[in-house]
Amino acid sequence: MITQLCKFLSLVFCLACATSAFAKQLFSSPDGNLKMDFFLSSEGRPTYVLYYKGKTVIKPSGLGFVLKNSDPLLEKFKITTVTNDSLNETWQPVWGEESVIRNHYNEVLVALKQADTNRRMSIRFRLFNDGLGFRYEFPQQRELSYFVITDECTEFAMSGDMTAYWIPGDYDTQEYDYTRSRLSEIRGLMEKSISNNLSQTSFSPTGVQTSLMLKTDDGLYINLHEAALVNYPAMHLNLDDRNFVFKSWLTPDVNREMAYMQSDCCTPWRTIIVSDDARDILSSRITLNLNEPCKLKDTSWILPTKYIGVWWEMITGKSDWSYTWDFPNIHLGKTDYDHAKPHGRHGATTKKVKQYIDFAAKHGFDAVLVEGWNIGWEDWFGNFKEDVFDFITPYPDFNLPEIRDYAKSKGVKMIMHHETSGAVRNYERRMDQAYQFMVNNGYKAVKSGYVGDIIPKGEHHYTQRMVNHYQYAVEKAADYKIMVNAHEAVRPTGLCRTWPNLISNESARGSEYQAFGGSKPSHTTILPFTRLIGGPMDYTPGLFENDITKYNPDKKSWVNTTLTNQLSLYVTMSSPLQMAADLPETYEKYLDAFQFIKDVALDWDKSYYLEAEPMEYVTVARCAKNTNNWFVGGTNGEIPRVATIDFSFLPAGQKYIATIYRDGKEAHYRNNPTDYVIETKTVTNKTKLKINAASGGGFAISLVSKVS
Amino acid sequence: MITQLCKFLSLVFCLACATSAFAKQLFSSPDGNLKMDFFLSSEGRPTYVLYYKGKTVIKPSGLGFVLKNSDPLLEKFKITTVTNDSLNETWQPVWGEESVIRNHYNEVLVALKQADTNRRMSIRFRLFNDGLGFRYEFPQQRELSYFVITDECTEFAMSGDMTAYWIPGDYDTQEYDYTRSRLSEIRGLMEKSISNNLSQTSFSPTGVQTSLMLKTDDGLYINLHEAALVNYPAMHLNLDDRNFVFKSWLTPDVNREMAYMQSDCCTPWRTIIVSDDARDILSSRITLNLNEPCKLKDTSWILPTKYIGVWWEMITGKSDWSYTWDFPNIHLGKTDYDHAKPHGRHGATTKKVKQYIDFAAKHGFDAVLVEGWNIGWEDWFGNFKEDVFDFITPYPDFNLPEIRDYAKSKGVKMIMHHETSGAVRNYERRMDQAYQFMVNNGYKAVKSGYVGDIIPKGEHHYTQRMVNHYQYAVEKAADYKIMVNAHEAVRPTGLCRTWPNLISNESARGSEYQAFGGSKPSHTTILPFTRLIGGPMDYTPGLFENDITKYNPDKKSWVNTTLTNQLSLYVTMSSPLQMAADLPETYEKYLDAFQFIKDVALDWDKSYYLEAEPMEYVTVARCAKNTNNWFVGGTNGEIPRVATIDFSFLPAGQKYIATIYRDGKEAHYRNNPTDYVIETKTVTNKTKLKINAASGGGFAISLVSKVS
Repeated sequence: MITQLCKFLSLVFCLACATSAFAKQLFSSPDGNLKMDFFLSSEGRPTYVLYYKGKTVIKPSGLGFVLKNSDPLLEKFKITTVTNDSLNETWQPVWGEESVIRNHYNEVLVALKQADTNRRMSIRFRLFNDGLGFRYEFPQQRELSYFVITDECTEFAMSGDMTAYWIPGDYDTQEYDYTRSRLSEIRGLMEKSISNNLSQTSFSPTGVQTSLMLKTDDGLYINLHEAALVNYPAMHLNLDDRNFVFKSWLTPDVNREMAYMQSDCCTPWRTIIVSDDARDILSSRITLNLNEPCKLKDTSWILPTKYIGVWWEMITGKSDWSYTWDFPNIHLGKTDYDHAKPHGRHGATTKKVKQYIDFAAKHGFDAVLVEGWNIGWEDWFGNFKEDVFDFITPYPDFNLPEIRDYAKSKGVKMIMHHETSGAVRNYERRMDQAYQFMVNNGYKAVKSGYVGDIIPKGEHHYTQRMVNHYQYAVEKAADYKIMVNAHEAVRPTGLCRTWPNLISNESARGSEYQAFGGSKPSHTTILPFTRLIGGPMDYTPGLFENDITKYNPDKKSWVNTTLTNQLSLYVTMSSPLQMAADLPETYEKYLDAFQFIKDVALDWDKSYYLEAEPMEYVTVARCAKNTNNWFVGGTNGEIPRVATIDFSFLPAGQKYIATIYRDGKEAHYRNNPTDYVIETKTVTNKTKLKINAASGGGFAISLVSKVS
Repeated sequence: MITQLCKFLSLVFCLACATSAFAKQLFSSPDGNLKMDFFLSSEGRPTYVLYYKGKTVIKPSGLGFVLKNSDPLLEKFKITTVTNDSLNETWQPVWGEESVIRNHYNEVLVALKQADTNRRMSIRFRLFNDGLGFRYEFPQQRELSYFVITDECTEFAMSGDMTAYWIPGDYDTQEYDYTRSRLSEIRGLMEKSISNNLSQTSFSPTGVQTSLMLKTDDGLYINLHEAALVNYPAMHLNLDDRNFVFKSWLTPDVNREMAYMQSDCCTPWRTIIVSDDARDILSSRITLNLNEPCKLKDTSWILPTKYIGVWWEMITGKSDWSYTWDFPNIHLGKTDYDHAKPHGRHGATTKKVKQYIDFAAKHGFDAVLVEGWNIGWEDWFGNFKEDVFDFITPYPDFNLPEIRDYAKSKGVKMIMHHETSGAVRNYERRMDQAYQFMVNNGYKAVKSGYVGDIIPKGEHHYTQRMVNHYQYAVEKAADYKIMVNAHEAVRPTGLCRTWPNLISNESARGSEYQAFGGSKPSHTTILPFTRLIGGPMDYTPGLFENDITKYNPDKKSWVNTTLTNQLSLYVTMSSPLQMAADLPETYEKYLDAFQFIKDVALDWDKSYYLEAEPMEYVTVARCAKNTNNWFVGGTNGEIPRVATIDFSFLPAGQKYIATIYRDGKEAHYRNNPTDYVIETKTVTNKTKLKINAASGGGFAISLVSKVS
């Protein structure tokens, strides 16, 4: 599979005496559309350039590192060997947007040696048809055995002042609304783009997060992210906004040191997805392909899950996670809840949970999540408190055995909730017991949370040490056959390929912000281009009640979508874990629309990206796994539009009954969000349909094969 | 038991409207020798004064705290209530210097409220006949719920420029030789008193460690320390050397914050032991008495243990902990030891360990410690490496099952070794598995180690977070019925009363320094006054070979004691865990002297402190538990002297055969350390013996009841 351009190189070339002859190393993707140069600058700095169909995607960009108490790994390098390889295979994920994924790339491994120090470092490039991935590798060597990275100097020199869809760089949160601006405008817009969060640490007026979506004036879509983030700090990007050069900016520890390394070792992959068609960004599988194959032998226990939960009523302030106001603070094992006076606002009561279980059973949901079931919520964050939760002791009004048995009798699973409040040592100390408690009580999945500042103070959510922790939690969960849905954890980088029990993540601004003042109507049209590049999100869609004061008069907030926009998200924001986030009593009012949530699949054989433009719209069609049922979702941003659905993705010669859930004529996210129409049509692969999508609107279609 | 002086106070007095009447609160010890004033300064600062037999021990000294982002808890206090109490009880330790300990004190609890803030803080004073303990208590309150201590301002205003026996204040090590000097001389002597250590962080030219021994010119002996150090940073003392006022100096975390507190809570006890007789300092039980009673229901598995170990040969460099030099570094689970070339210097081989087991069995030792048995020692410290040891994988030449079974067949226990290299998260993650591995293989005790800097960087050995860790390790060990002997951990503060499975500690300059250049001949005459105040030390005595080059020609070091000084330590440095540290081959040369080590007990019914002067000499007589056998140890410092042993401690009317191991005429720690005499005499409680003790010398006596 080695391309023509590379064939002049034998598989391994020793270039020790002939580096000048290879001053430039030109490689290309299997389809030839992407080309890459690698060369050493006059100072001996590793440098790469990336082209797409002849256009410059990344201008000459330096690579390397600054180390602590050691010479930098930046210059004075010589090329030792260049090794070519290629792969064209398919593999089957345990769950996902496709049941078969092609992994097709040309690879170049450039082995470098630094003059004077004799230290060796390699850079492995993989050119796919839809982008480039590269990483640094450090062979085991006495010259570079243990080292501390204080700066990673990977550059992404952009071709000009293009459009970026960005959120502020931050060591502790990604829960920001996106801003669309020119690169040159980021600095001026930074301050107002930083909204409040319970834990946040911005670092630069031109610092932004990955995955970062970009668009050039001549129509190139570019996405910068990373893959396989393991035991290394999360990468941000800091912009030199005079030259439009992004530089990697790692999350520092409290000593402003980034990564403790021991050779042999490697960094995560740095990824550049690129196309002239925005849809290709969404269909790219680079991030998954750059991760290791699944490490679990038995994955039969990993099951896509649709759930409801005792959650939205706490988020809206209709009820509370806590149980009592009797105590100034809580001491686990000491505070006497049994004799405390309940404040009457506790959400997770046995009675309430049973109602949720009933609703789940009635409507075919797999599971019920309950937050606030366990003691400790009265003072659960903001205190740098270590022993905040024990993960095993329910409140007096939450009868766990009774609920467990009731759920079982109804065929409904319970989802565990482990809020850590950033007290990571406490969680690790109690983790075995907490997971075993889940096993003992039939819990198959856990939503974990890291709200507030990490303990110890100075640690951040995205440091090497915390990245190591999230990984530890996922791997240990696998030992107990537990699925993990980690909130406030580092954003995913495709690790769900390797550890498919990492069933979802939050790591972005989720639905909850609709109760915290609202998100931009365009929010879910950019997330597929950014946050979802790394893996599925537990976005918790399904909000049918727009006016939060209906639940809590004190909470003036509005859900900035139409009702059918919410339905569309179950398709456009694919996740094997999907919630119907609103209250059962609200769904009862809209059972016709609710039907789509009940019907929609969670796992897919195929996905087709029909229409896409960042922060404007995304339309996706997907075939439910092992069925002939299809689902289409179209999520629209602020500008009303007419979507054109070309059903040519359907199998030929087959008729489908399409149930279409769409915005009504007067629909508008702000003025008339529940003006929706449900209609059925017969469609084939010849059908083209035009569907109006309102401002903040969208549509959802379920397609069932017609028995003619 | 309330003394006369206190009787005018009812048990609880509300003083809200009458504070002026109680401007001074005078209390005294049960025997009336110690008296204490408590009052509020004109600024409303809590202040105490301490007198012993009319002499001022502590001049008026302020109390209180500086907090982060909050008003200090220093001034503007008013006394709310003063509560008197007293106790006179006895209790029985699981092991120790006495089988029955008297706990006799008068207590005063002063409840304070701060004007403006309404915050409440109490100070609990306990006056024993031999000293004062006091601690701060913070009742649960909304006004002071969570708070961060950035400075504890407890003062100890000394009465003048007295003599101190001190080691440099340090956040990471106590492994220093002691310096005797005037308080005013500390600053000038500090620099040269700081010797090298693998992890050390000094903080002030007048900073010293507790337990600190002091002596006034008019003959008062004063000891400053703390008791029950739990979830709080270790306290150092910083001297204002113009006014001779010590102020508490807590070990800071990386943010220079000291303690995260949640009311209700309390600090450790601050202790001032005082007497005009140095022996009373050694017999004081204040530190144990101020700790909570034993929390373990079953203590039958906690057994005093005499052991040898594959250890001194590594310390001297005769052999090594590591196995191979094949690899630049070690990756647990990846490095292939099975195909590595052994370097041939590995100490912990199956063959060697079996020889040790044979020796232990032959000479009646309970156990054998083996260091370097498990993989990872090739690069075990200095790299901020997390996964440094797994605690369960032996080197290829250490056949654990074979050794385990062989030891069992010989009636010898194996002692586990868990070196952490400061990688505390790694240890906690693997702790359950490591302890379970011990249980599975019959190990009853573990020596744990914390060599090198703590990970993460910026953390120190004596921070609140690390104090919390050591406690966690001991409590979890108790779950597995494992005894812990933690090295490089925080110095003990009497916690072995509460957790008697904390069988010993290092936390001072141990015997190993005799191979690192030597310790002062007086070293073991000060340790009983300082380090041992908090609990037993695994000092590892028994060094019979003074010339370390005999073991390793490259290691020029000398053991600065005579041989019988080494014997004396088994009595003067009481510990339920005692090692015979030297090599079996050396003991074979001195079997007559070795007999004392074989005979000496580990646990005692009674102890009598016959002679004592800090940095000069200590002579102790102890009765072995549940026997009529007595042992006397006399450890001498640099100046030769004649000890007078008055055997009046023996039961009347009973004859004993005394086997005396003493320095010969020419004995000298440097010139003639093995000139010793062993003689037997018959003694009764009327006998007085004079025994010569050489420079760096000492003597040991075993007394067996004579069947007449």
